[in-house]
Amino acid sequence: MRRKPDPEQRRLELCDAAITLLAEDGIKGLSHRKVDRAAGVPDGTTSFNFRTLAALVHAVAARVAALDLEELTIATAASPAAGDGETSGVSGLARLIMRSSTGPPLIRSRARLELVLQSHRDVTLAEAFRHSGELFLALHRDVVLRLQPSGAEIEPAHIDEQAYVLQTFIGGLMTAIAHGDNTIESAEQLDGIMSAIVSGLSARR
Amino acid sequence: MRRKPDPEQRRLELCDAAITLLAEDGIKGLSHRKVDRAAGVPDGTTSFNFRTLAALVHAVAARVAALDLEELTIATAASPAAGDGETSGVSGLARLIMRSSTGPPLIRSRARLELVLQSHRDVTLAEAFRHSGELFLALHRDVVLRLQPSGAEIEPAHIDEQAYVLQTFIGGLMTAIAHGDNTIESAEQLDGIMSAIVSGLSARR
Repeated sequence: MRRKPDPEQRRLELCDAAITLLAEDGIKGLSHRKVDRAAGVPDGTTSFNFRTLAALVHAVAARVAALDLEELTIATAASPAAGDGETSGVSGLARLIMRSSTGPPLIRSRARLELVLQSHRDVTLAEAFRHSGELFLALHRDVVLRLQPSGAEIEPAHIDEQAYVLQTFIGGLMTAIAHGDNTIESAEQLDGIMSAIVSGLSARR
Repeated sequence: MRRKPDPEQRRLELCDAAITLLAEDGIKGLSHRKVDRAAGVPDGTTSFNFRTLAALVHAVAARVAALDLEELTIATAASPAAGDGETSGVSGLARLIMRSSTGPPLIRSRARLELVLQSHRDVTLAEAFRHSGELFLALHRDVVLRLQPSGAEIEPAHIDEQAYVLQTFIGGLMTAIAHGDNTIESAEQLDGIMSAIVSGLSARR
């Protein structure tokens, strides 16, 4: 047993405290000092670990993306595979989105909004979310493929469009949920809406 | 002819400069001094007109909302009324969204994202966007009503759900466009997608 906290573990705890700060006070409210206080560590600990505010923000983004990846991996494994038919239960995607309405996933979702809004003026930030963003899109494509009417020919361009529309809707929904919207009440209801969107788009071809 | 700039006109010019700053540098990058420089006015002009940073942010939000209202009014007038049938041309909503991909509407859209992200911790900010938000929702309801299959009985709860889904999709799309996404190429294409979403949702009832 070590007496001193593991340095990597300490950095993760600082990042987690920073995620909560970001969610509550926004990017304007983030500082080394506030993270020290929120994490209950001696003054200077955060700036010792992350020399600049940019370094802190990048580490926080990496932490959010890593936690996102964990959840995305679970959601992907939980989704029925394409070909299982659309009656095989609630999608992992719908469960993932509904989970973002409370607790730590809601806090992380609010923090992610703050970080993503910065990402078009910070390539390192944009890069931090690249991998999880790709997995997130792949999860939408899986849902779209699973929802194709059986026997229909599948044209890649149509799948692309449907995945884009679905992902755009889900992006809007996650933002709305992060702002406190709770219009959609269950993963089943969300799956029904996603299914209707895809079937509406499929039908017009 | 006045020699001195009209005080109200001067404040609007400062707000417009602040909108561009917000879009480029985010809420973190906004300060009285930077607005003075961006507007090309003597140092101190912005802090004379808006004593606190909060007062400046609230004035900028009011300016964004006023410009939004102008565009929303045009978009509402341009949309065919319910009952005109769905072949009567491109919706004002689709045109409004596509216009947000370039020029001053894109800058305003980026600034609005920054402000809206603050609005859940600032009631005055939230209030600034209340009226335009209501008009924006009404515009979605008009599109949904216009797209109902003819002869179908219209249940208010279904209209509400369809308007919610459409607005959530459009919210995600405006955010994507503000971040540089240009997947959707025309108002006609966007109208086709909105029509498919509504018909998919209508069909499952």
